[in-house]
Amino acid sequence: MKSVLTIAGSDSSGGAGVQADIKTIAAHHLFAQSAITALTAQNTMGVYGVFDVPPEFVAQQIDVVFGDIRPDAVKIGMVSSAVIVEAISSALVRNEARNIVVDPVMVATSGSNLASSEAVVALRKRLMPLATVVTPNIPEAAALYGTDVTTSAEQEEAACAIAREIGAAVLVKGGHGVHDANDVLALPDGAVVWFNAERIDNPNTHGTGCTLSSAIACGFAQGLSVEGAVRQAKAYLSGALAAQLDLGRGSGPLDHMWRNARA
Amino acid sequence: MKSVLTIAGSDSSGGAGVQADIKTIAAHHLFAQSAITALTAQNTMGVYGVFDVPPEFVAQQIDVVFGDIRPDAVKIGMVSSAVIVEAISSALVRNEARNIVVDPVMVATSGSNLASSEAVVALRKRLMPLATVVTPNIPEAAALYGTDVTTSAEQEEAACAIAREIGAAVLVKGGHGVHDANDVLALPDGAVVWFNAERIDNPNTHGTGCTLSSAIACGFAQGLSVEGAVRQAKAYLSGALAAQLDLGRGSGPLDHMWRNARA
Repeated sequence: MKSVLTIAGSDSSGGAGVQADIKTIAAHHLFAQSAITALTAQNTMGVYGVFDVPPEFVAQQIDVVFGDIRPDAVKIGMVSSAVIVEAISSALVRNEARNIVVDPVMVATSGSNLASSEAVVALRKRLMPLATVVTPNIPEAAALYGTDVTTSAEQEEAACAIAREIGAAVLVKGGHGVHDANDVLALPDGAVVWFNAERIDNPNTHGTGCTLSSAIACGFAQGLSVEGAVRQAKAYLSGALAAQLDLGRGSGPLDHMWRNARA
Repeated sequence: MKSVLTIAGSDSSGGAGVQADIKTIAAHHLFAQSAITALTAQNTMGVYGVFDVPPEFVAQQIDVVFGDIRPDAVKIGMVSSAVIVEAISSALVRNEARNIVVDPVMVATSGSNLASSEAVVALRKRLMPLATVVTPNIPEAAALYGTDVTTSAEQEEAACAIAREIGAAVLVKGGHGVHDANDVLALPDGAVVWFNAERIDNPNTHGTGCTLSSAIACGFAQGLSVEGAVRQAKAYLSGALAAQLDLGRGSGPLDHMWRNARA
């Protein structure tokens, strides 16, 4: 059985963060391991507390995982401080990690900030260049690109510009766009692939970004190309949204096990 | 969809702790939430680092979960210090939690100690009386009972004695016994049920205790009795062992998704 490592924050409410990642990896019947970067006291209405894990302990979790059941792919989510970005980058290089998906988490679905501006700079300079693919949504792409992203042309231009800068594939997700749920993938060689999809009418989107990025890492562990992994991950996410789970008083979580019968 | 909350430590290697719990709950197609009590840097060969979460942050995670998607059952695993036991007990009482499974984790499968002696005393006095069922293995039952447990008669006597003391059901698991994998359940009214099973020949047992206790909590969330939940949980664990996953250089993890086809 192939293994996927998630390096991310913990979401007590189970819909996002390492919990969403573990559910996604399990749903793919792959083996999930984790290095937790921060704990949050969170539910569907907001993030009420954040407890950062010391950088050296984040690194130790990664080293111990690589020292035994070596991950076939790695997904990186919430990293709230520059020193933790640094610890993760060094650990990934030291362990010769491959098939890396970086989800540049900046803001939770509920609107809460999850990373300092110094962390975003470090993410861009240190961690994103190690990635195979980076998966910003529209607001994150705009922050990374340095200007507004409101049209499809700007979405594609942002993806290409970031891909050139970091030398990795960049998927700019349209879920936060005005018109649709169209995503664009810019590959480091300059190629561009659009994934056009109907938006699924479901107000419960807590953890969609975490879920998509860990599903892409699952595809890498299964040997898929970037385009193939993104395509499979989007199909998985669409199914999890279409299952119309409705839990919690805010934007609720997905049904990660939608392929299985309900209990 | 019913929800199960796990209150436990994080196992970076994914085989035990909240990771095993989340996989188990997902495999039952129930909704997993979590309050993390400690982080471990751990793999199948040992526990290399433990980082305790501040008691007030453990309590905040529990409060935030109960304030939104109210859990239908709660599983409690690794609690390494008496102050964290205290924080959990108070939070469970404050939130009127029901259907509580306490797995008195003292030692990891790899042999590492996971709780102080003060924590064990607090567990016994404060947390176990809140439980619906407590699930010690033979060494843990011996520690709680205060004398050696080597025969089936002693196993049953220990279960009954602890059940009388705490006023809850006690399942003493025979997996660590000399002869077999027979478990005994003592109910608070004095009734005793034996679950006799062939031991499954699999050296990879990392996280079996975590998995069984969270599977029992799943049964409670589904409305089963104590006996019914234990019976279903044992069947689930047996399947996860019989799938013969073989990962890592030490005692490896289970295949939590054994009911699904492999990727």
